Amino acid sequence: MSQAYPGALTRERVDAVIAASGFTSWVGTELVDMAPGRVEIAVNLRRELTQHHGFGHGAVVGYMADTVCAWAAASVVGDVVTSEYKINLLAPAIGQRLTAVGSVVKAGKSQVVTRADVFAEKDGVKKIVATALATIAVVKAPL
Amino acid sequence: MSQAYPGALTRERVDAVIAASGFTSWVGTELVDMAPGRVEIAVNLRRELTQHHGFGHGAVVGYMADTVCAWAAASVVGDVVTSEYKINLLAPAIGQRLTAVGSVVKAGKSQVVTRADVFAEKDGVKKIVATALATIAVVKAPL
Amino acid sequence: MSQAYPGALTRERVDAVIAASGFTSWVGTELVDMAPGRVEIAVNLRRELTQHHGFGHGAVVGYMADTVCAWAAASVVGDVVTSEYKINLLAPAIGQRLTAVGSVVKAGKSQVVTRADVFAEKDGVKKIVATALATIAVVKAPL
Amino acid sequence: MSQAYPGALTRERVDAVIAASGFTSWVGTELVDMAPGRVEIAVNLRRELTQHHGFGHGAVVGYMADTVCAWAAASVVGDVVTSEYKINLLAPAIGQRLTAVGSVVKAGKSQVVTRADVFAEKDGVKKIVATALATIAVVKAPL
Repeated sequence: MSQAYPGALTRERVDAVIAASGFTSWVGTELVDMAPGRVEIAVNLRRELTQHHGFGHGAVVGYMADTVCAWAAASVVGDVVTSEYKINLLAPAIGQRLTAVGSVVKAGKSQVVTRADVFAEKDGVKKIVATALATIAVVKAPL
Repeated sequence: MSQAYPGALTRERVDAVIAASGFTSWVGTELVDMAPGRVEIAVNLRRELTQHHGFGHGAVVGYMADTVCAWAAASVVGDVVTSEYKINLLAPAIGQRLTAVGSVVKAGKSQVVTRADVFAEKDGVKKIVATALATIAVVKAPL
Repeated sequence: MSQAYPGALTRERVDAVIAASGFTSWVGTELVDMAPGRVEIAVNLRRELTQHHGFGHGAVVGYMADTVCAWAAASVVGDVVTSEYKINLLAPAIGQRLTAVGSVVKAGKSQVVTRADVFAEKDGVKKIVATALATIAVVKAPL
Repeated sequence: MSQAYPGALTRERVDAVIAASGFTSWVGTELVDMAPGRVEIAVNLRRELTQHHGFGHGAVVGYMADTVCAWAAASVVGDVVTSEYKINLLAPAIGQRLTAVGSVVKAGKSQVVTRADVFAEKDGVKKIVATALATIAVVKAPL
């Protein structure tokens, strides 16, 4: 994973990616860490991001899993779109802050298989709340 | 699917469910149709719901698929939580409005298997943009 | 789905495909029906295809779901390999015979999204035992 | 994961489980290693387990992933059935022998979330060929 593609997504370019996406910036996505093939992000919970019990909404948890998978893939191969993902919700997302870590399992020519874990932090204690497996499609540049 | 559980989610109770969830109401979720085992919702796209190309964000598409699956299950068995789902993103969510239809494949005692399709409407033309398969866990009431 | 690719898998070529695969022929895979974008197969249960309760083994159910998805895709786009699938096992595969129906949800240039249902027949009564959603990758011919 | 349930599947009981299942014994499933929450199995490839290129058939790869997930769950909670799984096929299963490792991500009261990796060994070199994420349902003993 250490040898990234020339057009790969880098830490320097993530801010522009966040700013360009209405949803990504509205949620308040923060990049925590990024290396070729591995990305970590965080989101602070607020009322608009919760479900009816006041926990983080599954849509936010799913968003974070998908995002770290796509960015982990992009950090290796460049431009991508999510083809599909599967997510298991393991526990309620209770806390003040969610974090997600995505990593590349295998990067191929046309697709990158990735996995992600999402965690909730409550009063400094971090607990896994979801795990995901995703297929990210490589967007071919026109010749 | 026609015989709903006494505590099942009904059309009359959905407004309260939407109001109780910060994310669900912020997104602007509208109930289009609901019958035991089948639910349809809609969301009007606006900047905060888009990705970097201005299309509906995958997180919104995933949210809609998950929501109609959970509500279709709830319309048959009562209180539920999403256990897991898998979604295939088929095309960019281009348009002014997204709709999603969820239906129950099989309702068991402890879980309900459901499927969903998500559509984007552009200038009156509706196109499928995602399809999902979800396992919804039945929340047992304490004895 | 009615306009198949010139190299698409046809009913005439399926026998050769079955004969070429050790597992497919050992299982006793029968083609029931095939049209561009839709395939149905059947397998008669015997002891080697069962699990510890004597029901059809999940591996056989998964095999059938994967096979009809891949063949449905191949019937539209030609040579393929399964990229990934997700399957929900809905009920024990009790009976003398299993059937599976796969169909194309969307065929793209590099991948085909498909779904499948698997049924068990016991004493003439057919019951759904599994449902699946799969991504089938198109194998590009070398230029 | 170290504290197994009294009725949990143990190394001593696996031989009986293999013998009881027609498919499992026919495939030639070997237990390589087992500890509460983690299971490794192996299968030697032979013609009946291959697809048309002579590689290990996807059905065998899927079977192995499902089996180590179910057994890893059973090693912690006792009797189980597979609820659903999703598998990504990463590379052709080329070689003489396949191995699969399954582990528990989270064990709950009614379900256990597990993951698995499948490897092919060719001339002593081991390569990952698939990765899976599964939900295993706990079978409740009647009171």
